[in-house]
Amino acid sequence: MTGAKSEPSAKPLLRALAGGRLSRPPWWLMRQAGRYLPEYRALRAQAPDFVEFCLNPALATEATLQPVRRFGMDAAILFADILLVPQALGQKLAFGDDGPLLEPIEEAAGISRLRLKRVASSLEPVCETVRRSRAALPSETALIGFAGSPWTVATYMVEGGGSRDFQRVKGWAYRDPAGFQALIDLLTEATTDYLSAQIAAGAEVVQLFDSWAGVLPEESFERWVIMPTRRITARLRERFPAVPVIGFPRGAGLLYERYALESGVDAVSLDTGVPKGFARERLQPRLAVQGNLDPILLIAGGEALERAVTELRVALGGGPYVFNLGYGVLPQTPPENVATLARLLAEPIDID
Amino acid sequence: MTGAKSEPSAKPLLRALAGGRLSRPPWWLMRQAGRYLPEYRALRAQAPDFVEFCLNPALATEATLQPVRRFGMDAAILFADILLVPQALGQKLAFGDDGPLLEPIEEAAGISRLRLKRVASSLEPVCETVRRSRAALPSETALIGFAGSPWTVATYMVEGGGSRDFQRVKGWAYRDPAGFQALIDLLTEATTDYLSAQIAAGAEVVQLFDSWAGVLPEESFERWVIMPTRRITARLRERFPAVPVIGFPRGAGLLYERYALESGVDAVSLDTGVPKGFARERLQPRLAVQGNLDPILLIAGGEALERAVTELRVALGGGPYVFNLGYGVLPQTPPENVATLARLLAEPIDID
Repeated sequence: MTGAKSEPSAKPLLRALAGGRLSRPPWWLMRQAGRYLPEYRALRAQAPDFVEFCLNPALATEATLQPVRRFGMDAAILFADILLVPQALGQKLAFGDDGPLLEPIEEAAGISRLRLKRVASSLEPVCETVRRSRAALPSETALIGFAGSPWTVATYMVEGGGSRDFQRVKGWAYRDPAGFQALIDLLTEATTDYLSAQIAAGAEVVQLFDSWAGVLPEESFERWVIMPTRRITARLRERFPAVPVIGFPRGAGLLYERYALESGVDAVSLDTGVPKGFARERLQPRLAVQGNLDPILLIAGGEALERAVTELRVALGGGPYVFNLGYGVLPQTPPENVATLARLLAEPIDID
Repeated sequence: MTGAKSEPSAKPLLRALAGGRLSRPPWWLMRQAGRYLPEYRALRAQAPDFVEFCLNPALATEATLQPVRRFGMDAAILFADILLVPQALGQKLAFGDDGPLLEPIEEAAGISRLRLKRVASSLEPVCETVRRSRAALPSETALIGFAGSPWTVATYMVEGGGSRDFQRVKGWAYRDPAGFQALIDLLTEATTDYLSAQIAAGAEVVQLFDSWAGVLPEESFERWVIMPTRRITARLRERFPAVPVIGFPRGAGLLYERYALESGVDAVSLDTGVPKGFARERLQPRLAVQGNLDPILLIAGGEALERAVTELRVALGGGPYVFNLGYGVLPQTPPENVATLARLLAEPIDID
């Protein structure tokens, strides 16, 4: 798949995603813009409503740029939220202290109230953030767009927020797979359109976050994770053959390999539990990998952080590799540990 | 390993765990005693404090027996809680509406206040429950004892309850592995003693629950999950060579195989995400497997439940197999669906 990317690029992230082996890995961090940064907290105070903040291009662009300015990552990721899509489809969304709250979709009747046509106009401010961020970034820094995967977004839409056991959404999918397929199909359309608009506005890479991929048994994983992802990647490839797609099926465990081979992604982001040996032997010969430092190590810092970073670079640096965490930066992370990480990643090391 | 169990047993569970292939799989369900049963809710009302309930042999025995009486599972599992061990070591424990609450262990100073010697006497009521349950069970029904694995119990002890990101416990393990090792060692001792006492009292099988095995990267998984489990299984095998140990490293994903091969367990319990093909090809030739129906299917019922049960039996029934869920029974489960499951499992099916 990566062979299809023909245009050489000076940007390290794009070179790695196209299958290149770099002497130091390009890096960025999931949730690199966020509450661990004092400048982000100050910015957020200007628009305490989180959805408003995401849909304000001036503020969202500044949030996108802050971590790159401070730490010099090889990529910025658009500041937004995966639940902007359900809101754009017409589902009420608010963020409380315990996370997102949505008015849960009530099976078929709930789907009929969603409007695919609203998506483009509702999410135009996000595309404006993409344009402004792209224009402001240094020439060697890539801009990543993103969306939630249909399955993961559907879990929030049906559960009405986060969940422990995914009883409503799985119950629906088990009892009435054809009905649930209609929601997944709608989200597949909306996600394809949304990512296409981000790319048209200037995103050079897109990542699909499937945070709850890991809660499904194999048959359901195939139907609700792999198949919709494959439809999205196929359509993006038709329209934008040079733009790589990174997939992140968090928690997929023993299904990581099927996802990597069958979903059509150009690179796969690894959660903390994916063994480095497996990634090197089974995944890297076929596609680029990204990951997977434990975010807790970025809080712990010190010797443990240093050793783990070296081990990752030694294990994965011999193939196409993007350094990242196994999940998002936690709010308690000391910014100075991220500075240490930047320094560690700039040092050359020996890789056979 | 299973070859070492020489004594033939009439109990279907023990035959399957010893490597036997049965025409219908023996079955039991994690959390088969619990809130989904009206008779359990009535019983719990007699001792609203959950710890008191667990430590009352009359009530805990009745809870242990209730599901077997209603559904005729092939095994009863001792009614108790994995956090009785920290309480027995001297840590304060209470159960609130949002789950367990413990006074968090504060690194080395916290460990020094724990008392291994208290464990045997504090947990004597649990052994009395084992004795009474064993005496009351039908002759073909096996009795399973259990404990939490050191890593999982340690997460609750250090976090002070459940956790989202395991920041405190992982942070400690990363910053001060030697200090954290002392807690794991203490728990390894306590768990070995506790399971030995359960076996001496009449438990015929024991299961180690490692519910949070899946949050660790490989090196940590090896040190905090595999190594302590291996020490426990080795010592139990010395003392009780005929008693099989089932391990449940929930969420271990790509590390399931290492756990199955290296931890010394006789059988491995599979979470919902473990593919049946992997279990059949990579695990069953080496040890018995148990699992892994999605608990949500037991809520959904109907055709989806029936199909999934058949698929599991076809995929895994050709080797040593114990039917179970991929995790515990949820409180919302209709008891009539468990009755349906019992009926389905009693029907013969074709397995090549």
